[in-house]
Amino acid sequence: MINYPNNKKIKVHQNNNSTNAVKKVANTHKRGQQLEILINQTNEHYIEHNRAFIYKKPTPIKIVNVVYPKQNFKKLHKITEAYFEKPSTTDYNGLYRGYYIDFEAKQTKYKSFNISANLHQHQINHLIDVNNHGGIPLLFISFYEYDQIFIIDFKELLSFIENKKSLVPLKFFQEHGFVVEQKYNPPLDYLPLVDQIIQRRKNNE
Amino acid sequence: MINYPNNKKIKVHQNNNSTNAVKKVANTHKRGQQLEILINQTNEHYIEHNRAFIYKKPTPIKIVNVVYPKQNFKKLHKITEAYFEKPSTTDYNGLYRGYYIDFEAKQTKYKSFNISANLHQHQINHLIDVNNHGGIPLLFISFYEYDQIFIIDFKELLSFIENKKSLVPLKFFQEHGFVVEQKYNPPLDYLPLVDQIIQRRKNNE
Repeated sequence: MINYPNNKKIKVHQNNNSTNAVKKVANTHKRGQQLEILINQTNEHYIEHNRAFIYKKPTPIKIVNVVYPKQNFKKLHKITEAYFEKPSTTDYNGLYRGYYIDFEAKQTKYKSFNISANLHQHQINHLIDVNNHGGIPLLFISFYEYDQIFIIDFKELLSFIENKKSLVPLKFFQEHGFVVEQKYNPPLDYLPLVDQIIQRRKNNE
Repeated sequence: MINYPNNKKIKVHQNNNSTNAVKKVANTHKRGQQLEILINQTNEHYIEHNRAFIYKKPTPIKIVNVVYPKQNFKKLHKITEAYFEKPSTTDYNGLYRGYYIDFEAKQTKYKSFNISANLHQHQINHLIDVNNHGGIPLLFISFYEYDQIFIIDFKELLSFIENKKSLVPLKFFQEHGFVVEQKYNPPLDYLPLVDQIIQRRKNNE
């Protein structure tokens, strides 16, 4: 059993040859899930407390086959064949203080964040579009070997992208991003940091 | 074969007892799909032309079982059991001119739109939250028997909701909403109408 999209437990069938590969994917996935779970819990907290309305988009899935079981037509629409698709944009978006907020959450074990290894080109383009049209594009990066989670205005990374530099060192996040402290509830209280990001944008206008 | 989420062709297995029910759902679904297809094409046009970044959220799906086929671990993650879930918010959201835009698209054959029959309570709450936090909540309604598609500021419908009136007559949309003309490309050029909705909001501030 591994955790999969939306924190649902799902069974994984495997043959012996692929055991290691499954374990490896499961570990990477688990790590990604941990950051995601914390963000999701935080967003739920914000929604409950009427502070922000930011949601994770469902994982896009290509449906190939659906069966309506006998005598149970209305109740069960069972999908029997489907595949995961690449998301066309980012994982999270929503509304805070009248601002359109849009972000992706990633984790790395390295001491630098590799933009092109972690983000698809269309996701980068999407975040640039958000920036150009008055939204607030953000990145959450967990440097888990260094036990630090950052939130950064994606705008800060544009010079790397423009100069075709993909490796952004941890130090850059320490200087240009904001450390997201882990607390009890909400686990990642990032809205005060978004306030600072918005204020910084206003100061630079 | 019917059209299902994301305009994918999928096979539908059916036994004889459920044929009519399948046809009925297929027709309703097809009608809903038609409006959705037009909106999706319009949104793609806007994205291509760098005007707005509004996307349909993927259909949420509860995954129960995934199989990694032998010797093809990386390539195929086949979902063999999954079910459709109710969306937690609305179908569409995105960014336009710095505004957070959020909407649902519905169709009716009647001469009035039944709010509670067409929107889940949590979707209504979500649209109210969007309104209260500086976003632009909208509804697309296709009165297909009358061949008219409207876009309306969801704010206009709040008096119905507050007074627990669920039926909104076509006339109300004619008076308080905007007719969306069908064109060639984009098929539903609704952004100029959103401009008017934003302007009307500013005038009422």
